[in-house]
Amino acid sequence: MLYNDWTLSNNEYDPQKRQARDALFFTGNGYFGIRGFFEEDEKTLGANGGIYMTGVFGMGSYDAWEGKSSELCNVPNVLRVSISCNQEDVDGFSSISDFNQSLDMKKGIYTRKYLWTTAEGKRLEFAFERFASMSDRHKIGQRITVKALDKIDDLSISALLDSDVTNLNLVSGEPLPVQPGRNHFISRSVKTNTLSVTLDDPDSTVLNFAQHTVASINGKPITGKVITTGKTCGTSYSCSLNNNDVLILEKMIITVTSLDEHLDAEQAIKKFLSNPVCYEQEFTRHCFSLTDKWRISDIEIDTETDDLTIVRYNIYQLLCVCPEHTDRFGIGARGLTGEMYEGCVFWDNEIFVLPFFLYTNPSAARKQLMFRYHTLDAARRHAKKNWFEGAMYPWQVDRKGIEQTPVNCGAYYAIHIIGDIAFSIYRYWELTGDDNFMMSYGAEILYETARFWISRCDFNSFDGKYHIFAVRGPNEYDVYVNDNAFTNMMAAYNLKSVKNVFQKLKDSHPVKFENLFKRLGASQDEISQFWKVADKLYIPYNAKMDLYLEDDTYLIRRSLDLKRAKPTKKRIIDSTLPYEALPLYQVTKQSDTVLLCCLFPHLFTQQQRENIYSFYEPRTAHDSSLSYSPHGILAANIGLHKEAYSYFIKSAYLDVNDLQLNTISGLHFANFGGTWQMVFHGFAGISTDNGRLCIKPNLPAQWNRLTLHCCFLGHIVKIDIDKFCIAVHKETGESPLTVCVAGQDYLVEDEPLTIKY
Amino acid sequence: MLYNDWTLSNNEYDPQKRQARDALFFTGNGYFGIRGFFEEDEKTLGANGGIYMTGVFGMGSYDAWEGKSSELCNVPNVLRVSISCNQEDVDGFSSISDFNQSLDMKKGIYTRKYLWTTAEGKRLEFAFERFASMSDRHKIGQRITVKALDKIDDLSISALLDSDVTNLNLVSGEPLPVQPGRNHFISRSVKTNTLSVTLDDPDSTVLNFAQHTVASINGKPITGKVITTGKTCGTSYSCSLNNNDVLILEKMIITVTSLDEHLDAEQAIKKFLSNPVCYEQEFTRHCFSLTDKWRISDIEIDTETDDLTIVRYNIYQLLCVCPEHTDRFGIGARGLTGEMYEGCVFWDNEIFVLPFFLYTNPSAARKQLMFRYHTLDAARRHAKKNWFEGAMYPWQVDRKGIEQTPVNCGAYYAIHIIGDIAFSIYRYWELTGDDNFMMSYGAEILYETARFWISRCDFNSFDGKYHIFAVRGPNEYDVYVNDNAFTNMMAAYNLKSVKNVFQKLKDSHPVKFENLFKRLGASQDEISQFWKVADKLYIPYNAKMDLYLEDDTYLIRRSLDLKRAKPTKKRIIDSTLPYEALPLYQVTKQSDTVLLCCLFPHLFTQQQRENIYSFYEPRTAHDSSLSYSPHGILAANIGLHKEAYSYFIKSAYLDVNDLQLNTISGLHFANFGGTWQMVFHGFAGISTDNGRLCIKPNLPAQWNRLTLHCCFLGHIVKIDIDKFCIAVHKETGESPLTVCVAGQDYLVEDEPLTIKY
Repeated sequence: MLYNDWTLSNNEYDPQKRQARDALFFTGNGYFGIRGFFEEDEKTLGANGGIYMTGVFGMGSYDAWEGKSSELCNVPNVLRVSISCNQEDVDGFSSISDFNQSLDMKKGIYTRKYLWTTAEGKRLEFAFERFASMSDRHKIGQRITVKALDKIDDLSISALLDSDVTNLNLVSGEPLPVQPGRNHFISRSVKTNTLSVTLDDPDSTVLNFAQHTVASINGKPITGKVITTGKTCGTSYSCSLNNNDVLILEKMIITVTSLDEHLDAEQAIKKFLSNPVCYEQEFTRHCFSLTDKWRISDIEIDTETDDLTIVRYNIYQLLCVCPEHTDRFGIGARGLTGEMYEGCVFWDNEIFVLPFFLYTNPSAARKQLMFRYHTLDAARRHAKKNWFEGAMYPWQVDRKGIEQTPVNCGAYYAIHIIGDIAFSIYRYWELTGDDNFMMSYGAEILYETARFWISRCDFNSFDGKYHIFAVRGPNEYDVYVNDNAFTNMMAAYNLKSVKNVFQKLKDSHPVKFENLFKRLGASQDEISQFWKVADKLYIPYNAKMDLYLEDDTYLIRRSLDLKRAKPTKKRIIDSTLPYEALPLYQVTKQSDTVLLCCLFPHLFTQQQRENIYSFYEPRTAHDSSLSYSPHGILAANIGLHKEAYSYFIKSAYLDVNDLQLNTISGLHFANFGGTWQMVFHGFAGISTDNGRLCIKPNLPAQWNRLTLHCCFLGHIVKIDIDKFCIAVHKETGESPLTVCVAGQDYLVEDEPLTIKY
Repeated sequence: MLYNDWTLSNNEYDPQKRQARDALFFTGNGYFGIRGFFEEDEKTLGANGGIYMTGVFGMGSYDAWEGKSSELCNVPNVLRVSISCNQEDVDGFSSISDFNQSLDMKKGIYTRKYLWTTAEGKRLEFAFERFASMSDRHKIGQRITVKALDKIDDLSISALLDSDVTNLNLVSGEPLPVQPGRNHFISRSVKTNTLSVTLDDPDSTVLNFAQHTVASINGKPITGKVITTGKTCGTSYSCSLNNNDVLILEKMIITVTSLDEHLDAEQAIKKFLSNPVCYEQEFTRHCFSLTDKWRISDIEIDTETDDLTIVRYNIYQLLCVCPEHTDRFGIGARGLTGEMYEGCVFWDNEIFVLPFFLYTNPSAARKQLMFRYHTLDAARRHAKKNWFEGAMYPWQVDRKGIEQTPVNCGAYYAIHIIGDIAFSIYRYWELTGDDNFMMSYGAEILYETARFWISRCDFNSFDGKYHIFAVRGPNEYDVYVNDNAFTNMMAAYNLKSVKNVFQKLKDSHPVKFENLFKRLGASQDEISQFWKVADKLYIPYNAKMDLYLEDDTYLIRRSLDLKRAKPTKKRIIDSTLPYEALPLYQVTKQSDTVLLCCLFPHLFTQQQRENIYSFYEPRTAHDSSLSYSPHGILAANIGLHKEAYSYFIKSAYLDVNDLQLNTISGLHFANFGGTWQMVFHGFAGISTDNGRLCIKPNLPAQWNRLTLHCCFLGHIVKIDIDKFCIAVHKETGESPLTVCVAGQDYLVEDEPLTIKY
């Protein structure tokens, strides 16, 4: 892989790695996610494309908690191209040389090029470009450039909308080719350059696509022929080319679905077809929108390494997957880059991905939290089904917020997600001061999740404490434990947050508050009880070691020889010991108490954080992509610079190096968020505390300077860190900003402030 | 269901219950198991028959712990009959009346009769009889009697060997008809009245069948025609019948498989065909052998209820399933009556079924334990695979002793089976004094299982105790717990037994012992360590309540409203709460500590046993057929006569009443053993202690008298119990017998002894 400032590229065509690279060269705009598949390949699984849309699910393959499961649907391949030249098919990988695929992250465009040679030795240069428009998310642009290096008698190229696809069903570790997955279209309507399909989901969601193409040779337009078959439609161009002739085919696609509220599909498509936007025009608008996003999101690093490019790559994926057009779904574990985990949303969304948006795009963060509000009723139903009160947010959810983990696979235990959501609601409010959101939506979530915890914990008269039994913390290798420190601390935080929030809302907006209070059937007694239970919630801790324990039994389990258990990159459970063996051992799948230190940077003493790191780190298998970044943050925060940087490398290059051996089935979005957090919370050392922005930089030796922006309480703040100084510049925002460095508060007014550290 | 002394019968044909009754009207001889299917039915799933053979497995449907899983194979339907009358097919259920099916348990014969009426109104009486010979286990006899009540022009009846079958795949709770299962025959050889099939198991096991038929009308022989098709062979008879004519077709079947050691299939079949045994002759021999078994096994009850017949039914099934011809397999959870649990052997074999044989047929018991010896190497391999020492007997095994539970379904936790096997080895030795067995086989098992426990337990310096973490006790609703009392006590017993056994063997057979000691690589230090660890093995116990705890967390869990959790007969996990929810609750799936009281009747005080019963019984869901009998035994032993009898009714009539809603997929053999134990250990109150036979009767009010036999230390003892007295008669055995009643020892010599109680 080649790293060059804003560009990630690859000059090698390797059939074994091709489908993992399809994931790597993903482009998207939060509405669409498009794997970097070869649009001209009609021979392999690649013919199915790999295009996903936020919230577009079909029927899955197993029984979930409320009927049949859901799975992210591979929608029709709207970038489909069929190319033949002198009766030979061009498939993008046979008879090629000078291959290059490249992602320009500044412009948000993916380009693939190669030289193709016919059986007779005639040569053509092909270039394929695509972008998913950031200015109009319903639109995708595609451009194909063909340059003849020899005389070509007969070139035919068809730009299609193809509904003859199935899900990709790519499973990591399976030998290729894998079996194609399900076709989700129960009906189709194919007309001139327009295509509609109806999905097999319970809502019979309808997806409508239309395209407009233009083609030219050396700038002179040529005319195409309309093609319409049972499953495919499009326009086909045939021509001959002389030496050095250049054919350019440009195509714009519009998509509207029945999930798009306030948009009439028929009208939108009619308008598009009657007055089509041209490729170049839309691309310019798209670049403009993307540049606007980069203005706050970009992180500049002065370094001799490839880190600048890879950090941008991590951020770019977050920009491309963010569904800013809707508040009806979040960001799935693999975003829109693959089908693993059925495309569902987990705690990754709140704990790993959301902080990036909280600090760079609070309105996008708000929308993701609104998704949780919209599924609050499903969470209430889930609580009731499981004999609890309040709202029990499921572990793995589709668009409707329904639990998609198969029954008896641990979802009942993984309740820390409920605290994680509440934590994020509170963090959003802390960082934005958005009382309106809290009053109308957030407080209700906090209250209902607090009610859940009250019904989920048990009072033990033996020790006078409340306990939470039968849970699975972030260390999923526990099967289940009683009193997981992470779960219990998140629960306590959730329970206590109600009093804080309600007091402040009551003070600031007494009338609205009264309505809220009534609506929830709330009472001061109940709020007091939340606080009381939180206060007496048992947190496993060993005083002699000054060590927070993952759970009460962790210390008394047998130690595990990690080298024996994990001799390769493969997960323990895929290589040596069965999953059910692991509760016998001191082994942590992924950051658990370490993560607590990252979420509550001001709660633990320096010594406690050091103890946690030095005790758990050697016992952690990192058998999850969610593990490296919290370890990197904590290592940076406690001054273990080398270790921190080593974790950064693992996290930042995780998908590029296929560290988890499953990039093929989608990119790891929690890890992208984690990489950003490692730079922001770890190396820049930024946290917030009581309305102040705290900065304690821990720059890696390999970096000379780090520049980034963040949003905080209505300000946009630019922070510039070199080896000795922090420069803080408040770019927007009226009120002064308090910055805390080395325990001392500084007031940042309109002028930039430079502080030695 | 009708109960009449030795006969269980049914006059109702109910299509809904038919396949459950196929299981109920099972006949077998331990070599074969034959469901009570309709041999003339060619229309339904019944066409697949339902014949199983001990140890005959085909390839299963999932990955087990060493390659593909195994499943009990439905062998060719050797009782297949094709009947047509005036061009109408007779299928056994259409156009019938006066239906009766009946099992004569004294003679070991199953008879099914009905009146059949043609479309024209002509009537025929059909009777089908079958037995699996107890005198020559390779043989099955079948007799079909047809009596014409009207003149019949054209009757055709073919007696076939039919290999065109699949597994039955009957799943409880599924709507009928279920999908047929796998066909396990990878090749067939079909010749005149002989059939061979090769199975898809790793050994390519070959099953050979041959038949010989004779037919007569009113005693006058008629000649048949040989039929041979690709999958089927047999003999067909055609005739016309006058009013009151009786046609009798008799068929004898021989079966030899490649698993039959010391038996040449070709020769055996040749001999059978050249000199065929006739039905009546073999039936007489069979009855004789069976009578011999009943002599010791029978239990006579003087009662107005149906209990005599149902107790005999429970015993009869145990006689029919016992593989006395081989020591290469045990008795599966569903015996040879169905395919549930893949026909595998579990702890049911040792803890529930074996005691019946220990006390009534020690040589059969020895063979079942020899199966464990033959699979000791597999258990050693299993230990190593799981990073332990010694022998780890798997939870669910096929013929080869390989774990068949799918990975991560709890087999790793259910290690109490290892103690259960060791316990049974020790019990066999205690009850028989068979030093030869112990020296050659048993001691090795005890030593290797003790080594397993040493490697499986962990020393905890906090409390100075050894602990066994991550186990699943008999209460499988725990998912897993640390320190299950049942598992720990069985482990301790296992560990301690080594010292006892080795000391006695050394004293009695010093030379042989020396060899054994060397062979095992044993050492006195290791044996001392076994004892030391056992002594310090933690047993959860609450002193204040004088209560043994299933595990340390049971007491602090939340209580469960059992009525809400289990509103119907359905298991909790099939009706209200998911399996993974249950560790949150004080709920016991099936007897756990209660069972401990049954296995160690002299270990707990009366108060402790009462405490265990009164605490756990209301918290027990009885979501297993293994639960009622231990509750009944303990209830009887602590004097809760009404409760004991109520559990007896549940246990004894369990399959007849389909109490677990899954009799369709096979009878519950652990429960048959449990019923016997309830009568023997519970109502008769028989136990052993230090070479004495202890008797503490607890007769139900409904029973006036109870008479039974048992084998003990070489004696056959007859015990006769009425409301006031116990009469003990030593029928065989030289040495005197010590009997203990109400704490007082009595010496029984040759004369019967009557003791008031």
